[in-house]
Amino acid sequence: MKAIAVQLNPTIGAIEANTEKVLSALKRAQSKKADIVLFPELTLTGYCPDDLLLDPALVDAAMQKIETIVPFTQGMFVVVGLPRWNPKDKGKPLHNSAAVFADGKLLGYKNKTLLPTYDVFDERRFFEPGREEPVWDYLGHKIAVTICEDAWQHSGRVGDTNYQDDPILVLKEKKPDFVLNLSGSPYSLHHKAERFSIFQAVARALRCPLLFCNQVGANDQLVFDGHSFFLNEKGDLMQIARGFEEEDLFVDLSTHACPCSSAIDETKDLYSALVLGVRDYLHKQGFKKGLLGLSGGIDSALVACIAVDALGAKNVLALNLPSRYSSSEGISDAEKLARNLQLELRHVPIDDIFQNYLHLLNPLFAGKIEEEAEENIQSRIRGMILMAFSNQWGHILLNTGNKSEMAMGYTTLYGDMAGGLGVLHDVTKLHVYQLAAYVNRDREVIPQAIIDKAPSAELKENQTDFDTLPRFEILDPVLEDYVEKRLSAAQIACSRSISLEIVENIIRSIHRAEYKRRQAPIGIRVTQKAFSKGRIVPIVQGWTAQAKGSTSAIVST
Amino acid sequence: MKAIAVQLNPTIGAIEANTEKVLSALKRAQSKKADIVLFPELTLTGYCPDDLLLDPALVDAAMQKIETIVPFTQGMFVVVGLPRWNPKDKGKPLHNSAAVFADGKLLGYKNKTLLPTYDVFDERRFFEPGREEPVWDYLGHKIAVTICEDAWQHSGRVGDTNYQDDPILVLKEKKPDFVLNLSGSPYSLHHKAERFSIFQAVARALRCPLLFCNQVGANDQLVFDGHSFFLNEKGDLMQIARGFEEEDLFVDLSTHACPCSSAIDETKDLYSALVLGVRDYLHKQGFKKGLLGLSGGIDSALVACIAVDALGAKNVLALNLPSRYSSSEGISDAEKLARNLQLELRHVPIDDIFQNYLHLLNPLFAGKIEEEAEENIQSRIRGMILMAFSNQWGHILLNTGNKSEMAMGYTTLYGDMAGGLGVLHDVTKLHVYQLAAYVNRDREVIPQAIIDKAPSAELKENQTDFDTLPRFEILDPVLEDYVEKRLSAAQIACSRSISLEIVENIIRSIHRAEYKRRQAPIGIRVTQKAFSKGRIVPIVQGWTAQAKGSTSAIVST
Repeated sequence: MKAIAVQLNPTIGAIEANTEKVLSALKRAQSKKADIVLFPELTLTGYCPDDLLLDPALVDAAMQKIETIVPFTQGMFVVVGLPRWNPKDKGKPLHNSAAVFADGKLLGYKNKTLLPTYDVFDERRFFEPGREEPVWDYLGHKIAVTICEDAWQHSGRVGDTNYQDDPILVLKEKKPDFVLNLSGSPYSLHHKAERFSIFQAVARALRCPLLFCNQVGANDQLVFDGHSFFLNEKGDLMQIARGFEEEDLFVDLSTHACPCSSAIDETKDLYSALVLGVRDYLHKQGFKKGLLGLSGGIDSALVACIAVDALGAKNVLALNLPSRYSSSEGISDAEKLARNLQLELRHVPIDDIFQNYLHLLNPLFAGKIEEEAEENIQSRIRGMILMAFSNQWGHILLNTGNKSEMAMGYTTLYGDMAGGLGVLHDVTKLHVYQLAAYVNRDREVIPQAIIDKAPSAELKENQTDFDTLPRFEILDPVLEDYVEKRLSAAQIACSRSISLEIVENIIRSIHRAEYKRRQAPIGIRVTQKAFSKGRIVPIVQGWTAQAKGSTSAIVST
Repeated sequence: MKAIAVQLNPTIGAIEANTEKVLSALKRAQSKKADIVLFPELTLTGYCPDDLLLDPALVDAAMQKIETIVPFTQGMFVVVGLPRWNPKDKGKPLHNSAAVFADGKLLGYKNKTLLPTYDVFDERRFFEPGREEPVWDYLGHKIAVTICEDAWQHSGRVGDTNYQDDPILVLKEKKPDFVLNLSGSPYSLHHKAERFSIFQAVARALRCPLLFCNQVGANDQLVFDGHSFFLNEKGDLMQIARGFEEEDLFVDLSTHACPCSSAIDETKDLYSALVLGVRDYLHKQGFKKGLLGLSGGIDSALVACIAVDALGAKNVLALNLPSRYSSSEGISDAEKLARNLQLELRHVPIDDIFQNYLHLLNPLFAGKIEEEAEENIQSRIRGMILMAFSNQWGHILLNTGNKSEMAMGYTTLYGDMAGGLGVLHDVTKLHVYQLAAYVNRDREVIPQAIIDKAPSAELKENQTDFDTLPRFEILDPVLEDYVEKRLSAAQIACSRSISLEIVENIIRSIHRAEYKRRQAPIGIRVTQKAFSKGRIVPIVQGWTAQAKGSTSAIVST
C-alpha cells in the first residue's frame, strides 16, 4: 500500500485557492498510484480561520467543496479537513472535521474529539467535540483517522488540560492497522521533539504505522513547520518531509526501509520559521516589498538578513536614520551589511527634525524636557519617517524589536515599535546572537563589529542597554521561566541562582509593559509562549505588584 | 427574610483589596440584620482575570480567603465567587465557583455549569464545567445558587451556543423557594432589556423570587453596569440597584411591594458606561490625570466631556494642535468648549515641524510626496506631541477616535490612533451625535457649531469625512448589521435598501483595516461586538475579497 501526506500551505479562508491545491495534489497522487492521500487539518480553510468561522457562508462554501472533490478520489482513500455544521441541534454549531472519501464516494466524517482551548488555540469557541472514533475499511486495511490533539492525550495531560477522553484508548479496541493524523501543529522551539514522542507513543499503543500530515506556512503570528512524517508500528521514524515548505511525502508501506534520522538543528529551524513568517505575511496579502530601519545594531542586521532570504534583496529597502547619538561605526557597519546583502540602503538624518521638536517643546516644558520624553521623540521621528516611506511606496515596514526588550518595555510606542510585523518579537536577545552566528556560518554576512559591540538604543550619549536592563544572560532565562514555563519568582530565583529582587523587578517590568505590547504589531511566534496571541493578560490588575501611580507605565524607551 | 446583593467594583487580581470589600460588606449586612448576602461572580479576583488564572499562586491566594471570610458569616447565608481548583484530576484544573457559607461555616460550593466561550468570554480556556445544581436549606428555605450563564440557556440558545444542559430545568425538580445568581455580566447597549427577560423566565420557571447580583466597574475593555435586581416569583421587577456604581441592594422578601419601573435610558447608560470606563482605567492603575487632543471636532469634544466627568476638570489637559488646514472657527470652538468645561487648553501649532518633514522627505520622494503620506505626517506629529506631554508629565493620553472611522481604517496609525484608551472605539458616529445631544440636555456644553459642522480630519484643504467615507446614516447601520449581527452583504443590502456595491465596499474596508486596529489601544466596549477583545479576525486571509496587492492596507487616514 502507498500513501501520501500532502503537506500544503493554505491561505486562511481562501477556499477556492485551497481547493485547487487539493485537486492538484489528488492528480499528482493518482499519477503516482497512491492508495491513501492525507491532507492537513482544516485543509480547505487553513488553520485557523478564527472568527471567520462565525460567517455561515464560509462554512457553507467549504462544505460545498466536498462535491467538487468527490470525483477526484477515484481509486484512492482520501482524507480532507474542513469545518462542518454540527448535524445535532445541541452544543456549538460546528465540528472540526475530516471528510473521508474512497473511490469517488464520500464515506463519512471524523469529528475532532479533543479541542485545544489554551495558549493560541480557541477551538471550544467554535467547535463541538466529536464523540466517536470511527475506523474505515479500505483494501482490507482498517484505517483510523485522528485529528491533531486527538493523539496527544494518550501521553498524558496536554499543557494544563487533562482531557476526560482518550481517543487512542478507544481506537485500541478497534485494532486499526494504519492510523492517520491531520494536523495544524504550529512550530515552536523544542516542539518537534515533543511531537515525535507523542506520536511514537500512539504508534506503539496501536501497534500500527502512523502517517502524520501537518500544515506548512505562516498565518498571522503562527508558523506551521510541516515536517510531516511516517512512523512504523514500533514508532520508529521512517520518513520525514522537509520543514517550512510544501511537499508530498510519499510512503510505501510494503517496503522495509531503515529508520531515518530525527536529528534536529534548532537554530536552522528557528531561522527558517522567521523567513517563512515574513514571506507568507507579505506574499499572502499580495505585497512584495519590505522596509526596515537599519541602525547598525544586531537586531536590525538580523531582520535584514531574514527579509532578504524571505523576499529577495531587490525587494528590501533599508533606511539608516542617524542622530547626533549615532556612532559613525554604526553607520559604516550598516553600510557594510547592506553591501554584503546587496541591499539598497538610504541615509535619512533626523537631527534637524529632532531640534525642531525640542525647540517647540522646551518652552512648553519650562525648558526641562524629561530625558525619557526626549529619547522617545528621537525614536518616534524614526518611526514616522519609516512609515512615510511605507505610505509613499507601499512597502511593509518590518519591525526589528526583540522579545527581551518587548518583555521589559524597553521600546518606544509609535517609535521603534512601529511596523506591520514584529519579526523578532518572540526571539530573545540571546537567540538573536545565536541566529547571527548561524547567518555567518559560512562567511561574514553580518559584520563581526555589529555582533561584538555592546547593544545600545543610541538615544543619548554613551548609552547601552545595560544602563536600564539586566544582562541578557540573566534576563532571558528569567523570561523563559516566567513567561513560557510560568514558574514563580521564588522558583526562578532558586533554580537560576539569581537574587529574588532582580527576578521580581523583571516580572514587574513585564506586567508594566503590558499596555505597550497590546499596541505592538503582530509578531511571529516561535516559542511555546509569545507575547501576542496566546497570552491574554489584563492591563489593569492588582495581582502582580505594579508600581502604582508611577508614570513608568506610560514612559517608553 | 432579608437579603442583600452586594454590587461590588473589584480590581482584577487585587485579592487583598477585594476581600476587604467583602468583609466590610458582611459587617454592613450584619448591622442591617440581613439573612442572605450575595456577591458577584468571581468576587475575590474580579471578572475576569484571564491568564492570571494560570498562575497557581493566584488561585491559592483566593482559596485561602475562604478561611478569612468564614468568621464574618455568623447568622447569615453568604455566597462569594472565586476560582477554585477542580478536585478531580480530569478536565481543566479550575472551576468558576461560588463558596456557600452559613453561620460561620463553609457549607460547600456551586461550580458554574455553563461556561461562555464566545465573544469576550473564554471560560473554557480555564474552567471545567460543574455537573451539579445543589440547593441549600437555610432557615427553612431552599436556596438555589446559579452563576451567570447558568440561567441563560433556559430561554434558548445563548448567542451561537445551544448548551447540552439547562441548569434551570434541573433546579425545577428540586423546587427551590429562592434563587440567587452571581454575575459578571458586562454592559452593552440593549443588553439590559435582554437580561431582564432572561431572568424573568427563570423566576417564572422556578416559581420563586430571584436575586441577581452583578459586578460593577470597568476592567480593561469591559464595563460592568451593575443594575443588580430582585424579581418576585412572577418575574416582576421589584427592585433594581443603580447602574455604574457600587451599591448594597437590600431586599425584604416578606413585604409585598409593587413592581418598580424597568424603564431604560439608553443614552444616559451609554454615557455613564464611558465615564466609568475612563475613570476605572486610570484610577485602578493609580493614575489621576488624562490628556487629549482637542481639535474643535465633535469626537474630541465628547471625549473631553467624558474625561471631565470621569476625572474632574482639573485632572484633564487638552492640547489644540493646529496646522495650516485647521479652521480658525475650529480653534475658537475648542476654546469655547474648554471654557465651558473649565478645562486647561494649550495651543501647540504643528506647522513648522510639518514643513521640516516635507523639506526632508520631498527630495527623497522625487518631490512628489503622496497625499496620504503627507496627511499621515500631520496626524503623526500630533500623536508625537501628545505622547511627549504624556511622557513628560505622566498623563494618560485618551484616544478620541470613533467606531465608524476605526471600522473603515479612516485613521492614522501612530497618529490619531495614539493613546492608552480608546474612549469612543466602540461608539459609532451617530451615537457620538446622540451623546453630544445628551451632554447638552440642560445647557450648551459642547458649542452647537461643533455639532453642526461637517466632520473633517482637517489634513488637507476643504476636506470632509465624506470625501472618503459614506454618510454615517449609511455606514453606521451597515457596521451594526455586519459587525454586531453578522449579516451577509446581501442581507444588509436588502434589508437596509442600500446598494450591494456600497455594502461590499464597506465590508472590504473593514477587513483591510484589521491590521491597523490590531495596534489600537484597548477601547471601551459598549456594543455586543466591539473591535477589540471578542473579535478575533485574521489579518492575512483570503475570505473577504481583499484588494490584493493594493497598498491600501498600509495607507492610513
